[in-house]
Amino acid sequence: MDVISENKSHGGRQLVVKHESRATRTGMTFSVFLPPQAERGAKLPVVWYLSGLTCTHANVTEKGEYRAACAELGLIFVAPDTSPRGEEVPDDPEGLWDFGQGAGFYLDATEAPWATHFNMWTYLADELPALVAAEFPADMERQAIMGHSMGGHGALTMALGLPGRYRSVSAFSPIVAPAEVPWGRKALDHYLGPKGPAWRKHDAVALIEDGARVNELLVDVGEADPFLEKELRPELLERACAEAGIPLTLRRQPGYDHSYYFISTFMADHLRWHSERIS
Amino acid sequence: MDVISENKSHGGRQLVVKHESRATRTGMTFSVFLPPQAERGAKLPVVWYLSGLTCTHANVTEKGEYRAACAELGLIFVAPDTSPRGEEVPDDPEGLWDFGQGAGFYLDATEAPWATHFNMWTYLADELPALVAAEFPADMERQAIMGHSMGGHGALTMALGLPGRYRSVSAFSPIVAPAEVPWGRKALDHYLGPKGPAWRKHDAVALIEDGARVNELLVDVGEADPFLEKELRPELLERACAEAGIPLTLRRQPGYDHSYYFISTFMADHLRWHSERIS
Repeated sequence: MDVISENKSHGGRQLVVKHESRATRTGMTFSVFLPPQAERGAKLPVVWYLSGLTCTHANVTEKGEYRAACAELGLIFVAPDTSPRGEEVPDDPEGLWDFGQGAGFYLDATEAPWATHFNMWTYLADELPALVAAEFPADMERQAIMGHSMGGHGALTMALGLPGRYRSVSAFSPIVAPAEVPWGRKALDHYLGPKGPAWRKHDAVALIEDGARVNELLVDVGEADPFLEKELRPELLERACAEAGIPLTLRRQPGYDHSYYFISTFMADHLRWHSERIS
Repeated sequence: MDVISENKSHGGRQLVVKHESRATRTGMTFSVFLPPQAERGAKLPVVWYLSGLTCTHANVTEKGEYRAACAELGLIFVAPDTSPRGEEVPDDPEGLWDFGQGAGFYLDATEAPWATHFNMWTYLADELPALVAAEFPADMERQAIMGHSMGGHGALTMALGLPGRYRSVSAFSPIVAPAEVPWGRKALDHYLGPKGPAWRKHDAVALIEDGARVNELLVDVGEADPFLEKELRPELLERACAEAGIPLTLRRQPGYDHSYYFISTFMADHLRWHSERIS
């Protein structure tokens, strides 16, 4: 593990870390914020933040406005990358931004040429938590997960797919049913092959339909989000949660879009909500 | 005036605006945050934020973490660019980052080839305030100014050079005596010619020595700032303020560096301090 930058901020330490990943067979970079409470020896709860298409760890680290709340609440905040990267890693055949590098979709690919490196599920379910537990004062009994857009999909599917792992889960503008929308269908088709049972393990709405459960959900979407109707489709999550009896707080925020200007507005809200459940 | 982006954030509106400047004879881009109170018709106080070397309006707009406090306090926040830009605008002869485009030093250049475009003093003292007053619900009787590094220099020299204009002034990591430090000497020599009386109008310490006054000053510096001893030299400001009887609150923040991780930590503090003086 190489600390490639460290900056004091809001009384804590904002690190950017690079390490060699067995899961992705590449170097992987993530950021971790250690709040001031980390200096005092106690183990602290961990919030995982999964980012959206095209993002690296850097977007939320620079624009997410999470450090003040994490410092107040005593939360470790981990922001992984969204895919393996590098010259040896295949990318979108048409050079588009919605697939390949920057678009790992938080699954383990089974299809060539993607399966060699695109193993973000194993990376985030197993490898990175072990590293975080070994290197930082993280209480792995108190984990929460959240994410944005493709990362909202990741947060929902990881929480649904790893029951008991996370005490709470929330999302901004999540892709709730990738099997039903263009971004998701393109990714699942390339990474997992033609539509079939494997897709349902990486589709939050299908997971709920198939019996997966979480205690409750907090989701914010912006009513001015240009992707709301075609890619995000929160009404599908609303229906699945209603039928499954999962308490969903879905807030449609008037005037807000898909950007970090939206996310940063409600970041502290989400962190307080998680803190009440994991602290 | 063209609004090139608008995003709802923290209940208000974050705009990025481009306009043709008479002062710089270029297009100029700035950002302005209108807090939610702006929708209610009242005129609101204005905080000017001047950025440091290499920055545009975008750095503080993305990383400054000012919107939550401005929304709470009802402050309009304006972040101008740091220089004219464009192919027609001359730049550092050696291609370095500490002079030329991105390094206007908040003065009107008198030397060729800089004098044609590098007129940031006139731009910020006259042209941009007139535009802001005309286009936004800004109460120009209640202005505050702050800045970072080269922008801290700009905030100090504009407040000292335009007595009565700003009700309060603060700075992060300011260059307090450009005539005495490498960044400043390089810039003043190119823009204003060999060291002489003109330099003293753009050097906060010299201005104070020559009798300019502000009511009080709030300055934060990071003790781990790599530029502290060679370029910033806060002790020179401390001495000048002591001799002039200007109340200076100089806070040496342990462990903090020169980055937005530092600025964002104390941004809300500064905004509250200004709000108490202009609201």
